[in-house]
Amino acid sequence: MKQGYDTEECIAALATPWGESALAVIRTSGTGSIEKIASVFKGSKNLASLKGYSLVYGRLFDGDSAVDEVVAGVYRAPKSYTGEDMVELFCHGSLPGVSAVLELLYKVGFRAAQPGEFTMRSFLNGKVDLTRAEAVNELISSKSRQAQKLALSRLSGSIFGAIDKAKHLLTDILAAVEIQLDYAEDEADPEAGFDMDKLDKASDILSRLAATYHVGKLYKEGIRIALAGRTNAGKSKLFNLFLKEDRSIVSDIRGTTRDYIESSVAVRGIPAVLIDTAGLRDSDDPVEAEGIKRSNMVIESADIILYLVDGTAGESQDDADFIKNHPCIPLWNKTDICKMPAPEGYIPISAVTGAGFDKLENAIFQRAAGDKLVDTGEAVIDSMRQKELIERSLDAIGKVKIGMAAQMPLDVVAVDLEDAVNALGELTGEITTSDILENMFSHFCVGK
Amino acid sequence: MKQGYDTEECIAALATPWGESALAVIRTSGTGSIEKIASVFKGSKNLASLKGYSLVYGRLFDGDSAVDEVVAGVYRAPKSYTGEDMVELFCHGSLPGVSAVLELLYKVGFRAAQPGEFTMRSFLNGKVDLTRAEAVNELISSKSRQAQKLALSRLSGSIFGAIDKAKHLLTDILAAVEIQLDYAEDEADPEAGFDMDKLDKASDILSRLAATYHVGKLYKEGIRIALAGRTNAGKSKLFNLFLKEDRSIVSDIRGTTRDYIESSVAVRGIPAVLIDTAGLRDSDDPVEAEGIKRSNMVIESADIILYLVDGTAGESQDDADFIKNHPCIPLWNKTDICKMPAPEGYIPISAVTGAGFDKLENAIFQRAAGDKLVDTGEAVIDSMRQKELIERSLDAIGKVKIGMAAQMPLDVVAVDLEDAVNALGELTGEITTSDILENMFSHFCVGK
Repeated sequence: MKQGYDTEECIAALATPWGESALAVIRTSGTGSIEKIASVFKGSKNLASLKGYSLVYGRLFDGDSAVDEVVAGVYRAPKSYTGEDMVELFCHGSLPGVSAVLELLYKVGFRAAQPGEFTMRSFLNGKVDLTRAEAVNELISSKSRQAQKLALSRLSGSIFGAIDKAKHLLTDILAAVEIQLDYAEDEADPEAGFDMDKLDKASDILSRLAATYHVGKLYKEGIRIALAGRTNAGKSKLFNLFLKEDRSIVSDIRGTTRDYIESSVAVRGIPAVLIDTAGLRDSDDPVEAEGIKRSNMVIESADIILYLVDGTAGESQDDADFIKNHPCIPLWNKTDICKMPAPEGYIPISAVTGAGFDKLENAIFQRAAGDKLVDTGEAVIDSMRQKELIERSLDAIGKVKIGMAAQMPLDVVAVDLEDAVNALGELTGEITTSDILENMFSHFCVGK
Repeated sequence: MKQGYDTEECIAALATPWGESALAVIRTSGTGSIEKIASVFKGSKNLASLKGYSLVYGRLFDGDSAVDEVVAGVYRAPKSYTGEDMVELFCHGSLPGVSAVLELLYKVGFRAAQPGEFTMRSFLNGKVDLTRAEAVNELISSKSRQAQKLALSRLSGSIFGAIDKAKHLLTDILAAVEIQLDYAEDEADPEAGFDMDKLDKASDILSRLAATYHVGKLYKEGIRIALAGRTNAGKSKLFNLFLKEDRSIVSDIRGTTRDYIESSVAVRGIPAVLIDTAGLRDSDDPVEAEGIKRSNMVIESADIILYLVDGTAGESQDDADFIKNHPCIPLWNKTDICKMPAPEGYIPISAVTGAGFDKLENAIFQRAAGDKLVDTGEAVIDSMRQKELIERSLDAIGKVKIGMAAQMPLDVVAVDLEDAVNALGELTGEITTSDILENMFSHFCVGK
């Protein structure tokens, strides 16, 4: 986005995935968008005279030639997603049809929207702050129900609320400081009117928020879990058990190479990529040896390794060596047919009956999240940008505290206080640059 | 679909493709669907009290837990796609979010819709006849702009109009015949009141429609075009030229095997799969020989073969043999650098400059469609079901003509007349069975 961005230009984009389907939604926004579409629309009612939040059925025409039968949804500024006049066209999900509708729109003065441009306009038009704008993208790309809930909470303003509270505390202090600075220097009393309690409260809020980044990132990015163990330890059975137990519809199995297969699952709400590797064994066959080498690389790079031992065969020297040398979760498999109790340190499971699976999930969750349980009402950040700005604010607050303790002149302290406030202003977008915006929204999907 | 299908049941389905995107649309229908969704929706207005064709912004809740922020579109029976109360939920295109919304809907009494179930309800509720219902699916699965236009014309009732006209002519005759049959047998005059002119008109309409099936099928199913020729004849260059000239966005290149690559293009509106094969040459290498063997199979099974000869190298004996033995379109390539004029029967082209491409497209179109040019306003059928029923009606009309010529008793003629009418009734769906419906709609997408 360049300086002097023209929010008046009319933009259009397919907002649903490109594919044959019952419906496709083409989204448009900008001053004049309703009239532009009305000029090529014949419906049961005149689209241009409809009030906001109404639907109308009709046909789009390119000259005399019908382009598609659609339902059009009309929104009027400022009551729309972008804050501008908007029309959403609900078309047939036909690939040539969708192309034809977009071409028609370009013909009557729309241009193709950039990624995130609708949300950027929403921000520029004051409909959302930056934390909410970021939450839109976080919501769409969320990989588990829990991650989606956290993003939804941010979208409803949980981050903004906390930041705004901290900022108010800081600006209160700043206002008091500035009154002091209006007095002659010898009259000023650095301590008078400086509410250290408010500073601590602001600092508390921000520290708590910054501390959620670890867990936010966990839910956003997820973890990689590798299944390792000797051939016939039951890795594939355990892999299938994960798929069965995980009720998430997000699952998607794909064979990547012959050496291992991956699938997306969720463990206690944490998105995870589960990797089933080739069995660990020595081989003289060079092709197989290469496959095992690659399996080992996958295992080494995983966040969590589940190491399976066939309980009916017992622990071999290889098993013991692997467990000693890797920070893995050792599993004693086949408890359904194995008489031997699991040795110390193993979780006993049966990949066939599912026995012990709960304990296994707890162990994974514990290893991934520590004791950071997340309540979905809580404000949790998963944006590096937000984390860095909160830390900048906290650093500045730290300097203020040091300055006050050292009885530094108030005008020096005021500079740090201002920086603490400004960092929060950047976070919510009150203070911003076109660079920041361009960078942020370019990660969005088109049509959002 | 079983006998005694319950149109009162509330159904729900994702109507847009499954994928991360700006928007996802979940479609619902059935008596009570508005109230059911209102019970889990908190918005700026009460959803249950909205009139049809309105939109409302709000949140879906599962108990206290927000599931998604959505815009809901409300339609009230009979003014909706299905003719029933409907709600369309415009959600964030988040995979866990969409799953969560669907689960919430199942919880409050919706069930997952079957493929085509919304359109089937539209038919059962008298909103569309079967030709229009079929057109919905044809529209969505259309593979070129021209095919989409033809389906759109069917959707607007072009087939229904023609069939209805023919049927009225036939029922007029049948009514007159039945009046005759009310008289005592010796009083009846078979010729009296039998309007042979109307019968001819009906027959004309139906014959014309039946004749469009060839071209309808062509636009629906498209053609396979293979590029053949010796190594270095310029096949890959011509392949790329097709992709460049074809402005369809439907293009999708994928490598299928090492032996040939395919891409979807459109030639004068006809959807085509273009296949670039390995060069034809003898080889001693068994792997390469196998590849060439497979290429040959692809070439033999194509609808149209474009055979390229390198004009700078001239026609070899192999080239001449191939052209003699295959019904191909011979192309004299490299006219940009070749001095030799194209021999008789060749189309001169340059795959580099694009010269001659227009003539090539004309030749392909001519070979595929004959002289069957299609005006997009015209009713063109592409459904085998429709074609067979039209032919059944025409057969029955033929029997009526024979019967009248042979002065058969009117009651015998009346049986054939009735069959001619009934076939058309089946076509539009006035007469139908649950088997026909089940079979037809099962080919639709879910959500339509």
